[in-house]
Amino acid sequence: MSDQVIFNQVCIIGVGLIGGSLARALRQSKSVKTIIGCGRNESKLQRAVELGVIDQYNCDPATAVENADAVVLAVPLGVMPDILQKIASHLSENCLLTDVGSAKASVVSAVKSVFGSLPKNFVPAHPIAGTEKSGVEASFAELFQHRRVIITPTKSSDNDYIELTRKMWAACGAEVVNMDVEHHDDVLAATSHLPHMLAFSLVDTLARRDDRQEIFDYAAGGFRDFTRIASSDPDMWHDICLANQTALLKSLEQYGDDLKRLTEAVRQSDSGYLKQTFRRAKQARDAYSDKKQS
Amino acid sequence: MSDQVIFNQVCIIGVGLIGGSLARALRQSKSVKTIIGCGRNESKLQRAVELGVIDQYNCDPATAVENADAVVLAVPLGVMPDILQKIASHLSENCLLTDVGSAKASVVSAVKSVFGSLPKNFVPAHPIAGTEKSGVEASFAELFQHRRVIITPTKSSDNDYIELTRKMWAACGAEVVNMDVEHHDDVLAATSHLPHMLAFSLVDTLARRDDRQEIFDYAAGGFRDFTRIASSDPDMWHDICLANQTALLKSLEQYGDDLKRLTEAVRQSDSGYLKQTFRRAKQARDAYSDKKQS
Repeated sequence: MSDQVIFNQVCIIGVGLIGGSLARALRQSKSVKTIIGCGRNESKLQRAVELGVIDQYNCDPATAVENADAVVLAVPLGVMPDILQKIASHLSENCLLTDVGSAKASVVSAVKSVFGSLPKNFVPAHPIAGTEKSGVEASFAELFQHRRVIITPTKSSDNDYIELTRKMWAACGAEVVNMDVEHHDDVLAATSHLPHMLAFSLVDTLARRDDRQEIFDYAAGGFRDFTRIASSDPDMWHDICLANQTALLKSLEQYGDDLKRLTEAVRQSDSGYLKQTFRRAKQARDAYSDKKQS
Repeated sequence: MSDQVIFNQVCIIGVGLIGGSLARALRQSKSVKTIIGCGRNESKLQRAVELGVIDQYNCDPATAVENADAVVLAVPLGVMPDILQKIASHLSENCLLTDVGSAKASVVSAVKSVFGSLPKNFVPAHPIAGTEKSGVEASFAELFQHRRVIITPTKSSDNDYIELTRKMWAACGAEVVNMDVEHHDDVLAATSHLPHMLAFSLVDTLARRDDRQEIFDYAAGGFRDFTRIASSDPDMWHDICLANQTALLKSLEQYGDDLKRLTEAVRQSDSGYLKQTFRRAKQARDAYSDKKQS
């Protein structure tokens, strides 16, 4: 987090919770001289300038990326291919191209398809941070502090660009780690994408009941925490489902099988199975809490 | 929460998180002159006396309830029948008998079976409060403040005893409401028992993976909140599963069907289904948040 200029000009495409927080963190650490915001909604970009999140904005991606030392794609996964198409021939030769997508294989594939091959200055990344809120108004500079950022370099990624990406996130206070694209998508499907599916599904199941009013009236703290992530952006999560389809399906199927087995154990009053499952879960969850606290 | 003596002597059987917090709240509001604790583990009861939670203890339920104006069963649901058997012939004639069980039909059925019929002084109740922690050390007087307590009077419950139960919980700062036994069990299966099953099942599914270490290493805030309830007491939850088997199975099956449909939508890249489901869920969850905040 040393105050050292890393880039003269960064272009952040998509100035929402993640893009906005990245801009704020880069400004706070004085890592960038100028930050250009880009997006479809001009009034939101104006608001981002008013909030001091970005210096300038440009709604045309092709123009916005000109003269940038780094371009960060912080748009929903479904929008990435279109943006890449628009900016590909306008990037400066030595410009770092990176992104913040929650699934990596789909972004790598989109880049490959647009550029013909994987450029050496392309370094995919994913900050493991966020809240259930969206939009630049919800952004804050501390979002990435002490959080992990996973970099998933391709075989073509040049070391200098990998190092630049690492520096950028380290300047935001994050702990940067490397991972394979496929492994990243598998781990994130299990720890993030699957829980979001379960929470969305639970709230939807309950919201369609006739007694939904009472259901939500009598929901206590456990329910509140359990379902918080169901307030996340529906369109963004739609994109993640399709972008990480294979790994997510694997997790959903495994979970579906286990839940079926648990349901049968309840039906059969199988005390041994129930106690074993709950105890294993409690032990793992307690160990996780202890580790996070230490 | 007026400082008014409601009972001369209350016997709380099971001085854990709920029983202990009730004792603390009753003392703080000066609603009771003497609180007798009862349980199987003498050293834990000694600790409860040291902590000022109870005045005295007695490990024999039959003796502990003698001279009590109110007996509160705060033991796991599976232990209730045995305790009822032990205390039935030792209760004073006008002693309120109530409980804090998370499922009500099983307690009503146990009381009926032990007493032959439902006594007029028996009033089942359930405070919708708790944490994932257990034991008297985790108890605190404010646990029930601004929380709902659901009273599910039987057809035999006398109004005077219903009113006493209401007063007791109101003295703890709770909002007391009445509900049918069956409806209570159905609503709680959906809002509390089902989410606990889902969280236990998720953590267990992940904990059995080969890459569990990494899985938990990369789990972020959403996962933490989602799985907090998986740290709950395994044996207590085993008892709840069996005690509320019918309603829980209904909820588990409905959820299982909906999750299967969602999984198919991911497999088919069914954008319409995914977006609709996530949007409905977000809308319901946001409305719940707004209501809780107001």
